[in-house]
Amino acid sequence: MRRVNEGDVTVPAKNADKRVERSKAKVMAETYRQLSRAGVGGVSIDEIARNSGVAKTTIYRHWPSRSALVIDACSSLGSNVEAPDTGDIRADLISLLVNLAEQLQNASWSSVYPSIIDAAERDAEIATMQRALHAAFMAPIETVVERGKAKGQPGPERSTSSLVASLVGPLFYRRWFSKEKIDERFVADVVDGTIPLRPKV
Amino acid sequence: MRRVNEGDVTVPAKNADKRVERSKAKVMAETYRQLSRAGVGGVSIDEIARNSGVAKTTIYRHWPSRSALVIDACSSLGSNVEAPDTGDIRADLISLLVNLAEQLQNASWSSVYPSIIDAAERDAEIATMQRALHAAFMAPIETVVERGKAKGQPGPERSTSSLVASLVGPLFYRRWFSKEKIDERFVADVVDGTIPLRPKV
Repeated sequence: MRRVNEGDVTVPAKNADKRVERSKAKVMAETYRQLSRAGVGGVSIDEIARNSGVAKTTIYRHWPSRSALVIDACSSLGSNVEAPDTGDIRADLISLLVNLAEQLQNASWSSVYPSIIDAAERDAEIATMQRALHAAFMAPIETVVERGKAKGQPGPERSTSSLVASLVGPLFYRRWFSKEKIDERFVADVVDGTIPLRPKV
Repeated sequence: MRRVNEGDVTVPAKNADKRVERSKAKVMAETYRQLSRAGVGGVSIDEIARNSGVAKTTIYRHWPSRSALVIDACSSLGSNVEAPDTGDIRADLISLLVNLAEQLQNASWSSVYPSIIDAAERDAEIATMQRALHAAFMAPIETVVERGKAKGQPGPERSTSSLVASLVGPLFYRRWFSKEKIDERFVADVVDGTIPLRPKV
């Protein structure tokens, strides 16, 4: 049996693994709590150690820097949504954007995300993480837009990335900049403005 | 002549006023420098005092809190643009949005703004300032959209605020979230998608 040395005591590897997992989970929970309360700038390893009861040396063994901790805590942000495929592009986009609107207005990640965007302006590691997070987040919307383009709806005149910006940008704008309500009427306006209905061929 | 008491020395009011103005300008410049380097969270009154040579007591006399300092430093962010009026709604909007794109990609405020958005999630004073800053910033675009609506371009089916979100949201999205280039082609796509040309009556 693999055995690991934890301080003075040699313990069976399985128990040690469990203990490590429990400590890591405590650290992650406390990091996420600090992120939600005070943003990336408010994450302090000293305070995480104090509140989680996990020693700083142990924290540094798993995460070499504060950015590494923040990145790990953020990797679970948002929920992975499947791209719907009802055969109706408009309905699929409205369903994805209504779900996004709901999350923007109610999920806890939506008040943490601006601090990641802010940190990404100055921290290259966080910028890389934000790029990956963003790409994963936009993937189902891109999938539906590409499916629409394959059907000629909309036509070839705009790129997928340009269409995604016109679908998602107005929702982000209302959540974080103008602080207006994102209701179903608004979502339908945005979808219909971006992907106008075409006469069937 | 009005005389003010500055510590031990009584000086003519005019010189004292000038001295106060000079100190305030030094504090503002240093606050803005710290904002640009590290965001709202990186603004420290201790460090402002150290780097500007202005005493902390003097700083606190003019700005009761760190938020007050940040708010004052941000009030000069962005440039106030006049709403153009060439008689061509599309041309006016493209000119405003090309200017916005240029600022988003080159002006120093564009890397400071996410930290204001982030701070506004948790600080009510900064949220109030952000709301005012946003309103001033959107005013010329709103003016042109309303002028267009008065001419029936676009029709009454969408509100001004919904149209402004569809014009500006995609640009903000590319600058801060997807980190893509905002070129003139993209701006034209966004404007034409939002305010489609209508046949002349």
